[in-house]
Amino acid sequence: MAETMKMLAFLGIEKVGVIEKPIPEPGPRDAIIRTTSSLVCTSDVHTVKGVIEIPEERGLGHESVGIVHRVGSDVERFKEGDRVAVNAITPCGRCDYCQRGFTSQCGGMLGGYKFTGQKDGNMAEYFHVNDADFNLVHIPDSLSDEQALYATDMLSTGFAGAENADIPIGGTVTVFAQGPVGLSATIGARLLGAGLIITVESKPDRAELSRKFGADEVVDPTQGDPVQKILDLTDGEGVDSAIESLGMPETFENCIRATKPGGTISNIGYHGEGGMTLSIPLPEFGYGMSDKKVQTALCPGGRERMNRILRLMEIGKVDPTPMTTHRFPFSEVERAFQMMATKEDNIIKPLITY
Amino acid sequence: MAETMKMLAFLGIEKVGVIEKPIPEPGPRDAIIRTTSSLVCTSDVHTVKGVIEIPEERGLGHESVGIVHRVGSDVERFKEGDRVAVNAITPCGRCDYCQRGFTSQCGGMLGGYKFTGQKDGNMAEYFHVNDADFNLVHIPDSLSDEQALYATDMLSTGFAGAENADIPIGGTVTVFAQGPVGLSATIGARLLGAGLIITVESKPDRAELSRKFGADEVVDPTQGDPVQKILDLTDGEGVDSAIESLGMPETFENCIRATKPGGTISNIGYHGEGGMTLSIPLPEFGYGMSDKKVQTALCPGGRERMNRILRLMEIGKVDPTPMTTHRFPFSEVERAFQMMATKEDNIIKPLITY
Amino acid sequence: MAETMKMLAFLGIEKVGVIEKPIPEPGPRDAIIRTTSSLVCTSDVHTVKGVIEIPEERGLGHESVGIVHRVGSDVERFKEGDRVAVNAITPCGRCDYCQRGFTSQCGGMLGGYKFTGQKDGNMAEYFHVNDADFNLVHIPDSLSDEQALYATDMLSTGFAGAENADIPIGGTVTVFAQGPVGLSATIGARLLGAGLIITVESKPDRAELSRKFGADEVVDPTQGDPVQKILDLTDGEGVDSAIESLGMPETFENCIRATKPGGTISNIGYHGEGGMTLSIPLPEFGYGMSDKKVQTALCPGGRERMNRILRLMEIGKVDPTPMTTHRFPFSEVERAFQMMATKEDNIIKPLITY
Amino acid sequence: MAETMKMLAFLGIEKVGVIEKPIPEPGPRDAIIRTTSSLVCTSDVHTVKGVIEIPEERGLGHESVGIVHRVGSDVERFKEGDRVAVNAITPCGRCDYCQRGFTSQCGGMLGGYKFTGQKDGNMAEYFHVNDADFNLVHIPDSLSDEQALYATDMLSTGFAGAENADIPIGGTVTVFAQGPVGLSATIGARLLGAGLIITVESKPDRAELSRKFGADEVVDPTQGDPVQKILDLTDGEGVDSAIESLGMPETFENCIRATKPGGTISNIGYHGEGGMTLSIPLPEFGYGMSDKKVQTALCPGGRERMNRILRLMEIGKVDPTPMTTHRFPFSEVERAFQMMATKEDNIIKPLITY
Repeated sequence: MAETMKMLAFLGIEKVGVIEKPIPEPGPRDAIIRTTSSLVCTSDVHTVKGVIEIPEERGLGHESVGIVHRVGSDVERFKEGDRVAVNAITPCGRCDYCQRGFTSQCGGMLGGYKFTGQKDGNMAEYFHVNDADFNLVHIPDSLSDEQALYATDMLSTGFAGAENADIPIGGTVTVFAQGPVGLSATIGARLLGAGLIITVESKPDRAELSRKFGADEVVDPTQGDPVQKILDLTDGEGVDSAIESLGMPETFENCIRATKPGGTISNIGYHGEGGMTLSIPLPEFGYGMSDKKVQTALCPGGRERMNRILRLMEIGKVDPTPMTTHRFPFSEVERAFQMMATKEDNIIKPLITY
Repeated sequence: MAETMKMLAFLGIEKVGVIEKPIPEPGPRDAIIRTTSSLVCTSDVHTVKGVIEIPEERGLGHESVGIVHRVGSDVERFKEGDRVAVNAITPCGRCDYCQRGFTSQCGGMLGGYKFTGQKDGNMAEYFHVNDADFNLVHIPDSLSDEQALYATDMLSTGFAGAENADIPIGGTVTVFAQGPVGLSATIGARLLGAGLIITVESKPDRAELSRKFGADEVVDPTQGDPVQKILDLTDGEGVDSAIESLGMPETFENCIRATKPGGTISNIGYHGEGGMTLSIPLPEFGYGMSDKKVQTALCPGGRERMNRILRLMEIGKVDPTPMTTHRFPFSEVERAFQMMATKEDNIIKPLITY
Repeated sequence: MAETMKMLAFLGIEKVGVIEKPIPEPGPRDAIIRTTSSLVCTSDVHTVKGVIEIPEERGLGHESVGIVHRVGSDVERFKEGDRVAVNAITPCGRCDYCQRGFTSQCGGMLGGYKFTGQKDGNMAEYFHVNDADFNLVHIPDSLSDEQALYATDMLSTGFAGAENADIPIGGTVTVFAQGPVGLSATIGARLLGAGLIITVESKPDRAELSRKFGADEVVDPTQGDPVQKILDLTDGEGVDSAIESLGMPETFENCIRATKPGGTISNIGYHGEGGMTLSIPLPEFGYGMSDKKVQTALCPGGRERMNRILRLMEIGKVDPTPMTTHRFPFSEVERAFQMMATKEDNIIKPLITY
Repeated sequence: MAETMKMLAFLGIEKVGVIEKPIPEPGPRDAIIRTTSSLVCTSDVHTVKGVIEIPEERGLGHESVGIVHRVGSDVERFKEGDRVAVNAITPCGRCDYCQRGFTSQCGGMLGGYKFTGQKDGNMAEYFHVNDADFNLVHIPDSLSDEQALYATDMLSTGFAGAENADIPIGGTVTVFAQGPVGLSATIGARLLGAGLIITVESKPDRAELSRKFGADEVVDPTQGDPVQKILDLTDGEGVDSAIESLGMPETFENCIRATKPGGTISNIGYHGEGGMTLSIPLPEFGYGMSDKKVQTALCPGGRERMNRILRLMEIGKVDPTPMTTHRFPFSEVERAFQMMATKEDNIIKPLITY
């Protein structure tokens, strides 16, 4: 009889719970990881609200690190006992999308998102990783599990937001919303040479963290139109680059409005809950002729990129751990998940240990 | 007393007529051109409907060529008698936008559009060109006025649509609408290495011209959902690149729907008449995470680019003149303008001679 | 006892011959192909001269198509009997280089070049392909073996030369040498929107083919300095883009000299026989400050790209088969190889059938 | 009679001195600046050695700031009394090269370099600036003259070195030589998201400054082959990006050797004294097929870029002033120049005040 493990699973709309399942088996290219810690992600909260349709008892979670428990027969770079991280997105590396460089869209739209989307997630005692040689990365000894966890989604997504924003050296950037993805985008904008970084956030603790991570100005959107404040801070001109990291139609529109002609709107917010369409205001879009650009992205995965993100932490240029506001043992994961839904107690990221 | 000239002018909403005005004077960097021929552009039809607010008696037109009549004291590259073309967009070349390379946004949103937008247009016996050394271009002897006229807007805009579309060599492209801008985008897509070009057009004469200019398949949007046909023609996957050259919300949405994840939507349609917003369908946009990109553009100007477009005609790689469906003397310009509004007699581009 | 097959092999410096070897076995991700036809490549001639050190009895050849004979247990996209092509470069798709997009450098410098370089080549009755799901491509029914063969190296390499050359639409391009790679680069430059294409070639038959494939001017380098002629053809200014497709120090220097400031030198020539260094002339390089760029490339592989190249042939936009000047059965492959070394009888590409 | 001014001038090979000349007159687009301070640049030392041929009594210097003394009749953005900086490179903004975006090559090879190269330099009490609306920039009140001076050449050149280096976020970068340009490139690499920055420098004070500005490791090239040390620091693989900021053949070759396949060599060193050619080692260049790229640049000018560089200093993200090791009144400028030639007393940059 197969050994079993505990897993946080979707049990129906707005319902989650820890269940037992057999420990998964690896195919020839795969690995099974024994989890040591995880972070809870708001996108799972969206999923549990029904934004994505998934079967009941599907495991949740996509931000975990651990120890290699078993590897498939064809895995070459990893062996049992290795301490590893794995990105939330786990492309195959060989389909047409992967070959074109769009690994997040592996096999088709958003197809690189396999945890929870296509199989059990990794907020579980053990989890399965496809194409281990493409997706696993060794965690350097000098980094804690907690640091490595931030590379699996938050930093990779936030940095993609900044990388896609076409920030000119010394240019002006705004980041809408300073949740963990937006905070990571702020770190990214600072890393990539922005001159003036204006973030938009009303919660005082997040605003403070935003300044710590690189914001030169924090605009409170509850105190008047944030776009007007951004225009005021940029001589009425608007910013070179706007990063949408909330995933709401209004924020997206504000990004269009806050950029100058020729500017770039980089979207990393997941628009799963704001309706079926996004709206572009035409006057600020120059009636389609403003030379503005909208670029979207899903968290880029792969070992090579993960290694570069880990390097930034190793060398001390990035430390995302101030985002960890709460810590729980896996036995209290349901409580952590609940708090992530309510955002109570100013939670930003809860760390789960096994 | 200043000499006068005739000019096609805006006389109120839906009202145009030929009026007399003094021949303009050049400032030190400017030139005055004696017009020899013009093309009528549909965007003027939009303007006359009131889409852009302009004063009465403002001259219309932005696609003209002619002979240098006078030059300002600082003009170095051109002299009286030179045969020249000038792009519809005439940037100053020295403001911040021009220095960033966004010359179409000279001085601010859409600011490179000076004819009609900021001063009299060039469907007149004489016209004024700012920053002549930046904006004028000598027409090679081997090219007709008619050929050169297509470089002033249609080809420059259409090619920008293709250049911004990130077409992979041998990739798949769709161009929505085959008016003169769309036909030029089709030429551009062919020039830039597209493998499969699918255009969307219902009018038979335009469909035929589309094939002549490079379309491998022409989809008739009156015969069912064109996006479905595009998907069928691309193994259900969608195209790498979609070019919007109509300027309607539905067509823009279809571009989002017709592209594969990671694909690019290149907008060159002027969305002046379709309402105050564009709408992005979220499922086909991957909820903002599809790696899709939307790039907009206004006709890029400047002598250097004009020279490259003229070269393509000189060498015989491009011949846009089959788009000229009608010819009129300037005395009948009101009639030509009227036909451009009604699109009667399958008009595509009417040529005006002086 | 394993079945055997015939293979053209390296037998020592300047010595080749057909030998017998066992038909190879596939690993789990691999495929074995029964060859139906091959093209002989000049780079094998370089190899046999000792430019690359390989063991005796190593098989030659890297441009072959055939029928899938066996597949490994993990291969998903291909099965026995499929008619397939495979690029000369066969990356793994999962190492750090592949993940960065430099698949030609799979695992390290030039590491994507596995045929002959790391294992037996494919000028043999059967051959082994690593990572079949990444590297094999189905040949469309409408294409001949001969056409598909050109996608395996010549067109992929030549197109890379043009893709890397930063050709502005309507810009000026020169291609040095019109052997099969240079001719393919000429096709590529035409496909990618060049305005004026100047090729450099002295042999009349190659010059004629060059014009057929897209050259607007062919300069004969035996009739005076070709760079001076290129300058004369471009108003003394030089070209936007120069493509080196011979692999000789002098040609490389000429590319530096023939480009205008800000221009790009795209190298696809294999500099295996011209010594241990390339030389950059400093005055024409602006003493390192000319804004000139030198970009190098090795034939990019992978199914997705191969499919796009095949599509260009399917739709009829590219037909490289006029390059096939000679045809031999595999029994005469030694003779074909010999001719490729001597270039006798104006040989360009010899086709081998099995 | 015209008023006169003092100017540091070239008086013959290896000979400089302060001479008197009339204060220059502005043309319609020009401005005359009364100098308040300057930095001395090593490239003038090269010039005085005869690397560039200039007439005797030609003024030296291209790093100066001051107060607008007079403006030409067409200048719109600046007026007498404005406190301004001007880049070492002063493009016209309207020639073909400027329109293509290669403003440093204004009018032809290195043509944006007008001070000293084409007219008197600006190490003088007054100096002439062509195309003032393109080239002047207001210095923000919060910045000192000394800070603004670094934007005129050192930071703009050094940042260009980093911008051209294709640094992946968290990637590895080496900068060869830590003179003022190399130190600025190190600041640039830090600003643009490098993970590991390895600089090469033997002088202890420069090594220390290098660490202060962003180097994670400093390699001493007098203690063994620096390329070997760079390989050791990158697991034998080499760096993503190498920046040449010395201008010597050996350093250029080391950049080729130190980069991994697919890496970029960004040259900002001025190769005026190392002979007539640069040499590329073929094995480390993959015989022209390594996917390596060499990009060159001359200091990019223009107000818009200058504003972004000034912004980085205003906000406090960059402070280059620790490079100022010596200060002199203009009466001692000959002594300062002499020290820059001998590099005595560990001089990096001497500041001249008027």
